[in-house]
Amino acid sequence: MSKPQIGVVGMAVMGKNLALNIESRGFDVAIYNRTGSKTEQVVAEHPDKKLVPSYTIEEFVESLEKPRRIILMVKAGAPTDATIKSLLPHLDKGDVLIDGGNTYFEDTMRRNEELDNSGINFIGMGVSGGEKGALEGPSLMPGGQKEAYDLVAPILNQIAAKAEDGDACVTYIGPNGAGHYVKMVHNGIEYGDMELIAESYNLMRNVLGMSNDEISDVFQEWKEGELSSYLIDITADILTRQDDLGTGKPIVDVILDRAGNKGTGKWSSQSALELGVPQSLITESVYARYISAMKDDRVVASQVLPEPEFELGDADKKELVEKIRRALYFSKIMSYAQGFEQLRVASEKYEWNLKFGDLAKIWREGCIIRAQFLQKITDAFEKDASLKNLLLDDYFKDIVKNYQSDVREIAALAVKSGVACPGFQSAITYYDQYRSAHLPANIIQAQRDYFGAHTYERTDREGSYHFEWYNEQ
Amino acid sequence: MSKPQIGVVGMAVMGKNLALNIESRGFDVAIYNRTGSKTEQVVAEHPDKKLVPSYTIEEFVESLEKPRRIILMVKAGAPTDATIKSLLPHLDKGDVLIDGGNTYFEDTMRRNEELDNSGINFIGMGVSGGEKGALEGPSLMPGGQKEAYDLVAPILNQIAAKAEDGDACVTYIGPNGAGHYVKMVHNGIEYGDMELIAESYNLMRNVLGMSNDEISDVFQEWKEGELSSYLIDITADILTRQDDLGTGKPIVDVILDRAGNKGTGKWSSQSALELGVPQSLITESVYARYISAMKDDRVVASQVLPEPEFELGDADKKELVEKIRRALYFSKIMSYAQGFEQLRVASEKYEWNLKFGDLAKIWREGCIIRAQFLQKITDAFEKDASLKNLLLDDYFKDIVKNYQSDVREIAALAVKSGVACPGFQSAITYYDQYRSAHLPANIIQAQRDYFGAHTYERTDREGSYHFEWYNEQ
Repeated sequence: MSKPQIGVVGMAVMGKNLALNIESRGFDVAIYNRTGSKTEQVVAEHPDKKLVPSYTIEEFVESLEKPRRIILMVKAGAPTDATIKSLLPHLDKGDVLIDGGNTYFEDTMRRNEELDNSGINFIGMGVSGGEKGALEGPSLMPGGQKEAYDLVAPILNQIAAKAEDGDACVTYIGPNGAGHYVKMVHNGIEYGDMELIAESYNLMRNVLGMSNDEISDVFQEWKEGELSSYLIDITADILTRQDDLGTGKPIVDVILDRAGNKGTGKWSSQSALELGVPQSLITESVYARYISAMKDDRVVASQVLPEPEFELGDADKKELVEKIRRALYFSKIMSYAQGFEQLRVASEKYEWNLKFGDLAKIWREGCIIRAQFLQKITDAFEKDASLKNLLLDDYFKDIVKNYQSDVREIAALAVKSGVACPGFQSAITYYDQYRSAHLPANIIQAQRDYFGAHTYERTDREGSYHFEWYNEQ
Repeated sequence: MSKPQIGVVGMAVMGKNLALNIESRGFDVAIYNRTGSKTEQVVAEHPDKKLVPSYTIEEFVESLEKPRRIILMVKAGAPTDATIKSLLPHLDKGDVLIDGGNTYFEDTMRRNEELDNSGINFIGMGVSGGEKGALEGPSLMPGGQKEAYDLVAPILNQIAAKAEDGDACVTYIGPNGAGHYVKMVHNGIEYGDMELIAESYNLMRNVLGMSNDEISDVFQEWKEGELSSYLIDITADILTRQDDLGTGKPIVDVILDRAGNKGTGKWSSQSALELGVPQSLITESVYARYISAMKDDRVVASQVLPEPEFELGDADKKELVEKIRRALYFSKIMSYAQGFEQLRVASEKYEWNLKFGDLAKIWREGCIIRAQFLQKITDAFEKDASLKNLLLDDYFKDIVKNYQSDVREIAALAVKSGVACPGFQSAITYYDQYRSAHLPANIIQAQRDYFGAHTYERTDREGSYHFEWYNEQ
């Protein structure tokens, strides 16, 4: 047996599944886990697989073909640093380390720089698709040295998901932290997509009074159209499932409405704030999860703070459902417009030279936000690589034009009925701000100049001016 | 002449004005600036003042009474570190350094800790009120060692603004970074207040078609009522002013609608995201400034993306103006509820033991957000020091109850008319989320468990559960 072409460190579910995925494409895979019993267990569970276990880090590194290719699937943060430190003495110049964890992009930038000095290549790779994706084909977002990417590309191409046209859902993203940054924004967008679906469900359930089955049917229908996507698909499925603990209730009715998060949505919003990019929809989605987590407070408040008086009246429900669909698609477009705006500004700041069309392309399969409509984004950037905002592309412009009155109606319905829809609200608000030649920021600038002498710019000439507010006229 | 009781480093406008303020209360003030000519200039401009100039840092330190009290009014960041470094060799144990700049609270925590080892006391002090406040009486938010605060309290009490009841607008905020943190949230709240005023103006101007003079009259009226505040006051004034460059136009009509920012609003939102606190109104206000800054993009987009068809019809304008006023007050309350929530969580995390009622109290005068209504916040916390959210206090509950239908109407009007009001939208949305015993986060938890096996909690029993989504039922 020849030496394994690649190794995986970390045998938790993501690492194990990625190793099995690689093995299934005909590669020998070295595996290692800090706790050896886990490695033993993986080997015992898969006796027929070409997995080559090691129980010391030296052994593991020695077992690999050179230049070595090692994927780290360990916890982000200190455990990743510790793993790199333990590997380092055994590596040679030209070896390639790949961090497949959910790492903060600035950590990846730092590690890439530190390792670059010792001649070790370092790739920070976003991996999306959950456990199942890791096993069957994830979407992969590798960033680092281009020559290092070329050394692992043949393997990554084989293990990645394949889009309808056969293209592998992986591409070289850019230098140092680019891969993890793109994955972070992907996750932010995922928060937005999930929030918009939850709001649609909330409106159907609590304004239109529909049952879970009826709502499931709606999602079934939606997944055949322009909203076609993995998240719509699983939502339709989720709504049909019965509790497995024998209560006889639908599972969604026994799941507590307290959303968790792993921090990538938060990072995405913090970075947008840092870069000066208005990324309101994702941020509202993060905040919506935070408020949901305040369950006990909400229960107390619900007994004290009144809801509005609201009657739906004799509205046409079928028509309203179609308007909700349009509001969802419109809002999704705003969210992606904001996300790609963030990627554009980040790419400039960090000099990553991101290929926006390619990003949408590798998200078409494998990852959580996979959707038909990503092809439209790819098309938009293929038509115009320097497109400044998705909303200026003909396809999206037309959708937005045709759907704006529906999203306005749904957003108004939300505030009137008291069913909070922060995603829809921020979508239409962003649209109205972005398409406004005039915003009331003149008042803000006047105030800032008044109390802080911060100066203001003028509409009719260049330069900065200060008004003598304390002189009476 | 005895030795000066206090010294000020940094003779830019804020430092100079603070020194003059201290001097005006009967103290001798040592002054120093890295560039000596600036110091000379200040002395020359104020020959009758008891300012004691020094032209080397040694001389400056030597000139002071012990224990020394030194206020740094230099640029935040590296210049502050450099100034501290240059002072340090000349200081003695027990001396007190006070950083009055707009410093990021984590920097203050770090410096407090570093200096604590050498026995030098370090106070990070938020100073609000702009140039005029620094000179005539600012609101002061000092955080650091309590015993150090006691050494400077007699001076701070004299230079701070005085509230109607005679109380000085200064109090001991808490250890290490507490003062700068509170100042940061103060500034975030200021962003929110300014945004809500700008939105009100926008609605009156562009939906109701009112003139600047008419709008000014409205703000004049509002400042007499429950909205009474400095920012409402100056807005009324701003709207009456004529351009001083002779165009014959109102000044607000020649000020460019591109808002700047100094980063404290952004920090405030980033910290809220970090702490898991839903602080949507301030964040939307930060984003609103970012979008306003994209002026060129907006002008392009305005020619491509359509506005809605909208007719106000024969609405009663006077009535709508009153509804806008109520929407503004309602939204302001939501913003402060979020801001105090953020302070509560930060106080727990960093063990600052903040006195929330006292914070509102010292904001009643001197600072930019000074307002009559802050007394209501003080009252609420005096009634119940452990109040978890302002909305649960009787006064605020009643306002919210009486005004909620108005803010709903105004928010709906905003989305229908296309005049973006992100502040109002996030206010009513927060209200509806916070008062909802049930939110649709059950769908989000189901999705997360589906694609990532993240588990979910249940409504009917304790613990974490995973559903086998891939098994057919």
